[in-house]
Amino acid sequence: MRLYDTTLRDGTQGENINFSVRDKLEITRFLDECGIHYIEGGWPGSNPRDAQFFEQAASLPLKTARLTAFGATRRPKIDPSDDPNLRALLESGTPTVAIFGKSWDLHVERVMENTLEENLAMIHDSVTFLRQQGREVVYDAEHFFDGFRDNPSYAMKTLQAAWNAGADFLVLCDTNGGTLPHQVTEVLLQVKGELCVAEAAPRLGIHTHNDSGLAVANAVAAVREGAVMVHGTVNGYGERCGNADLTSIIPILQVKMGVPVVRDDQLHKLKRLSRFVSETANQVPHHNRPFVGNSAFAHKGGIHVSAIMKEPRAYEHMLPEIVGNARRVLVSDLSGKSNVEYKAKELGVPLGGNGCNTREIVDRIKQLEEQGYQFDVAEGSLKILLQKITEQFEPLFTLESFRVTIEKDRTQPCSAHATIKISVDGKEEITAAEGDGPVSALDNALRKALDKFFPGLDAMHLVDFKVRVIDGTVGTAANVRVLIESRDRDDIWSTVGVSEDIIEASWQALADSFHYKLAKETSADTK
Amino acid sequence: MRLYDTTLRDGTQGENINFSVRDKLEITRFLDECGIHYIEGGWPGSNPRDAQFFEQAASLPLKTARLTAFGATRRPKIDPSDDPNLRALLESGTPTVAIFGKSWDLHVERVMENTLEENLAMIHDSVTFLRQQGREVVYDAEHFFDGFRDNPSYAMKTLQAAWNAGADFLVLCDTNGGTLPHQVTEVLLQVKGELCVAEAAPRLGIHTHNDSGLAVANAVAAVREGAVMVHGTVNGYGERCGNADLTSIIPILQVKMGVPVVRDDQLHKLKRLSRFVSETANQVPHHNRPFVGNSAFAHKGGIHVSAIMKEPRAYEHMLPEIVGNARRVLVSDLSGKSNVEYKAKELGVPLGGNGCNTREIVDRIKQLEEQGYQFDVAEGSLKILLQKITEQFEPLFTLESFRVTIEKDRTQPCSAHATIKISVDGKEEITAAEGDGPVSALDNALRKALDKFFPGLDAMHLVDFKVRVIDGTVGTAANVRVLIESRDRDDIWSTVGVSEDIIEASWQALADSFHYKLAKETSADTK
Repeated sequence: MRLYDTTLRDGTQGENINFSVRDKLEITRFLDECGIHYIEGGWPGSNPRDAQFFEQAASLPLKTARLTAFGATRRPKIDPSDDPNLRALLESGTPTVAIFGKSWDLHVERVMENTLEENLAMIHDSVTFLRQQGREVVYDAEHFFDGFRDNPSYAMKTLQAAWNAGADFLVLCDTNGGTLPHQVTEVLLQVKGELCVAEAAPRLGIHTHNDSGLAVANAVAAVREGAVMVHGTVNGYGERCGNADLTSIIPILQVKMGVPVVRDDQLHKLKRLSRFVSETANQVPHHNRPFVGNSAFAHKGGIHVSAIMKEPRAYEHMLPEIVGNARRVLVSDLSGKSNVEYKAKELGVPLGGNGCNTREIVDRIKQLEEQGYQFDVAEGSLKILLQKITEQFEPLFTLESFRVTIEKDRTQPCSAHATIKISVDGKEEITAAEGDGPVSALDNALRKALDKFFPGLDAMHLVDFKVRVIDGTVGTAANVRVLIESRDRDDIWSTVGVSEDIIEASWQALADSFHYKLAKETSADTK
Repeated sequence: MRLYDTTLRDGTQGENINFSVRDKLEITRFLDECGIHYIEGGWPGSNPRDAQFFEQAASLPLKTARLTAFGATRRPKIDPSDDPNLRALLESGTPTVAIFGKSWDLHVERVMENTLEENLAMIHDSVTFLRQQGREVVYDAEHFFDGFRDNPSYAMKTLQAAWNAGADFLVLCDTNGGTLPHQVTEVLLQVKGELCVAEAAPRLGIHTHNDSGLAVANAVAAVREGAVMVHGTVNGYGERCGNADLTSIIPILQVKMGVPVVRDDQLHKLKRLSRFVSETANQVPHHNRPFVGNSAFAHKGGIHVSAIMKEPRAYEHMLPEIVGNARRVLVSDLSGKSNVEYKAKELGVPLGGNGCNTREIVDRIKQLEEQGYQFDVAEGSLKILLQKITEQFEPLFTLESFRVTIEKDRTQPCSAHATIKISVDGKEEITAAEGDGPVSALDNALRKALDKFFPGLDAMHLVDFKVRVIDGTVGTAANVRVLIESRDRDDIWSTVGVSEDIIEASWQALADSFHYKLAKETSADTK
């Protein structure tokens, strides 16, 4: 069974889903780590950014995944070697290429204004050409189910053309997402009946869309009928209602159907993969996403909770840990203690011995998380918070005040400057700086003020700055969460701030970041 | 075929889903208007608010729907007439009652610590009692699929007990949501085989949960095997990953399977129903929800768009109007000329006749999208941009200057205030305002200044504010994209701004939003 991820290509057709080249490289690395077999990275013939991705991705040390470039069959009436799209596919240098061709006579004749014969030749020639160039070829039969319904014999001819030309996989696509699972089953049975003769049987794949809420079910139906490649995207991102969600398909195949697809330790990363992709796409993660959502194993009703405590499988269809998720009990506070203790140890903050028990710490963290803080992605702030709660926090500087001003004149761009006053060991320092915006001005001013006391801060800089509106119902008065990632030569750390005011939230994250860095330096000095 | 809605009961088990009595009454009215046959309003024995709902709902003039109260079988070892839960069911006064009983021996013995025999008696006695009191009885066989897997003969006995006692519907529940569609099919076949003897056949129902992303598929599978009642919730709200989503099930049954469930004019209200319930529950509507989401019929790729214009069914599995939805064409960096032409028409901006061809417009949009603008989700800004490029933009106000100041003293929260000077028809206005952050202060100041010239702007407000750092490699100096969603009484529109400076980006989006609103008002006035 082969998992084929198209988050980076079909996923980006989703409204609001955009990835930079760097995002794509990072997602590729994570998908590989999770055991995905094929990663469709983009359409180099249609998009210069995708071509750039393949250039840079070539040097990624992938363990499992084969990079795949996507494109179309050759244009009508030209030689494949003259087709710029096919050439771009070859230039991408991937071991595998995927090309889509038309299966539906409606598309060939009405939309493309082509002849049925030429379309078959386009499929055959393109696959042949790419195979001759030594590529593994995944053939995507676009609109196969719609085509098969309208004109089954022609749809079959298109598949046959790709198969005769040597395609390695024939992928049946429900491009419009309107097919029902029992129809998928029937079509697969007929396709197998026609194509599997003697010992030759094509390897079939399935590519489904979620327009009827059935993308996962349709993929599962096809696997039951012998499909050996499943296409999907992380979190089901994709055009309209999205593609089949790999974060559902993987555990269904592996845990429920006993079809091994990835290693157990890779399956444990599924929730992290889902989160990583939603963060990178800056999409709010769906709490109720099957398997990987925050609510997927959350229990609210009292009956359920007491039953769960006696017998988890009474109200859980599988153990959440299998996919890296966790049980959550919404009405009670039974969860979390051991996590916090574990984490405090990891961060080097001793918890005992100052009259504050773990229960209180867990409550305080939960309270802050209710407000929008997110400590699982901001361990720098978590460390400082743990130190504050347990009265071990020793700030190396104190803010006296700051003032940030942003001015704009007519169509000139804004200008921002900040003044800041801090004190270190009772000595005050006031200074001012400019920046490309208020946070940058504030960062520069703080850095300049601290430099008087702690030289060497120039080795530290901010590498990422993320802003998320947490509750988008009250416009600009909603709570804003700012996540800052900072690094120096040896280390990367993240900090978080939350406020109705984006500058206040940024300040919290910024101050935590500098506190974290200075504490690190000081403890290194005294060693 | 009977549609059974449990948004008001099982739906409220979802994290963050809460309804007041008044909310419940309004949803009931809307569900009835949409042709839902049964509305499960709550569990009067467990919740005084639900009892109150039934009291008030009794006087609703429902056309189609039967109100249904939900509860459990009697407690062990007591007479049904002494059971407070069953009494509360009767007191709710609904023509139909639903009670759930245990099908899974694990639950009976391990969780309830009951005997298998007493559990059968509880089911039989409770159904008998409610039937004797003249109620139509829906029997929910909780955990039926899990129970049937572990101990099929006992699970069948529990169904038989309800059936012998005269239950009107036997509803098979996949309470934990772990069952796959082919398993649903197999179980239904066996249940029918055992229960349908001579001319007596029970009416079966299906109640599914979405823990494997298969709730809709499982419901459809059961209908294909003869289930005549489908349980679900609007938008799939419900515990953990939710219940089967009626906004998918209804069009699948009616449009794709030809099973009539509601009238066509009721089906047209499906999107409004979805929106109404998400608004009432204060949940952000999922754009990519099948059938009813805002993106469900949105097209991004250039290939798709030119095809759609020739032949809608080329890329649409059904006409969006059937469920009250609409086709949308998104403009993005993957798009071509045809998208922009289509979109300009939709937005009412004539493109021809001022020396600027579509190619140049597309190039300009692509250039801006390279910088980080995203027009597929900011149609307000796209409209203004198209007007600007084609020299049709007539600004109703001009910014002279603004200044925003944010101050913070020690641990006090930040305070923000803005001064702004604008001119309208050569007349200048300068004013100042405060806010919960710099953007809010700027919004308030602009609104105050414009109010002198355009009274009535208080009907407009910002409903969402999204910030995304586009390329997170240079820390706070990275480009920032701000998306603002605004609404007035009739309309929602989105605008975008991009800059290294978050305030500059926010200003662009804010100014576009006000320009959009004012242009809308002015053109309405002149009509």
